[in-house]
Amino acid sequence: MFDPSLPLSFVTSNPHKFEEASFTAQSFNLSLNHAKQKYSEVQADSLEEVAMSSALNLLGSIDPPFFLEDAGLFIPKLNGFPGPYSSYVLQTLGNDGILSLLSPFPDQSDRQAYFLSVVAFVSDEGVRLFKGRVDGFISASARSKGHGFGFDPIFIPNETPDFTFAELIPSEKNHLSHRSIALTSLFSYLSTVQS
Amino acid sequence: MFDPSLPLSFVTSNPHKFEEASFTAQSFNLSLNHAKQKYSEVQADSLEEVAMSSALNLLGSIDPPFFLEDAGLFIPKLNGFPGPYSSYVLQTLGNDGILSLLSPFPDQSDRQAYFLSVVAFVSDEGVRLFKGRVDGFISASARSKGHGFGFDPIFIPNETPDFTFAELIPSEKNHLSHRSIALTSLFSYLSTVQS
Repeated sequence: MFDPSLPLSFVTSNPHKFEEASFTAQSFNLSLNHAKQKYSEVQADSLEEVAMSSALNLLGSIDPPFFLEDAGLFIPKLNGFPGPYSSYVLQTLGNDGILSLLSPFPDQSDRQAYFLSVVAFVSDEGVRLFKGRVDGFISASARSKGHGFGFDPIFIPNETPDFTFAELIPSEKNHLSHRSIALTSLFSYLSTVQS
Repeated sequence: MFDPSLPLSFVTSNPHKFEEASFTAQSFNLSLNHAKQKYSEVQADSLEEVAMSSALNLLGSIDPPFFLEDAGLFIPKLNGFPGPYSSYVLQTLGNDGILSLLSPFPDQSDRQAYFLSVVAFVSDEGVRLFKGRVDGFISASARSKGHGFGFDPIFIPNETPDFTFAELIPSEKNHLSHRSIALTSLFSYLSTVQS
């Protein structure tokens, strides 16, 4: 059972992610504790496996309840690349690398992509996964108004076909985002079990 | 101390790697046992870290002495990509993906690359790493005579500027290869400690 009097920790070394999560948590009258910890992730083809494995590894060092989140950009035309390795690919190839890989495919149908977020929530009862997905496509060039991070400048959600994630103001992006969907699902679950 | 009467196991699910290793082992009058086991690898920026971590994880399930090997293709112009994630990138983007990423850079100096192999040898005394590296560059197109595997069709070692790894016959490739260098280093070490 989730005890709302205990602080709920979000384990992440990414301040952008923490900010987005806090924003979503506010609607549920939840405040989050930032456990600024890096942790090692397993190489796996699915985010679910990565998140589950990270959660189990952290069990020894952080007291529940806590959660972590892993996200990735999946491009079906590239067989799911960069998927679970999005963070490494962002650091090495960046947005330009993705645009370069898709340059032979100008048609929007070939540029379909989705962001997936997997949240692993750890309590005394075990590990529970919550997922969020947002579908869209990869833009022809990187476009940003200074918002967002990661692959946001090249991802256009289907819901806002004229704007990349990085052109939306934070509250708009948060309304649509994969991370927000996964976290809303977690926070809704917690509201249920505590009542 | 390495006891040569004990079977030495190579833990790998890749039959090509086992074949190459057995070939090298023959020169040292060593025969290898094939432990056909998959194991999970950590996400890390260096192969050394991946290999060390895999070795420690396997300690509980396989009796020493054994070794495993992790290899990757590193392209400085792409900030080291695909590096430790070479296997995933091969499955998703393939050789064409690498060629596509390098297509804006036709000059050979921009196409420099190296293969790195890290062997982790586990004995009663602990874990010891052996490394091998071969320098070369990425070809303009994939070329193969049916030999080799992985990124071999797009990698031209500096020593044979007219041929990709996949155009060399196995004994030639084995003479030059990163894996062969790392394994020769391991087998030489074993010959020393057992005498």
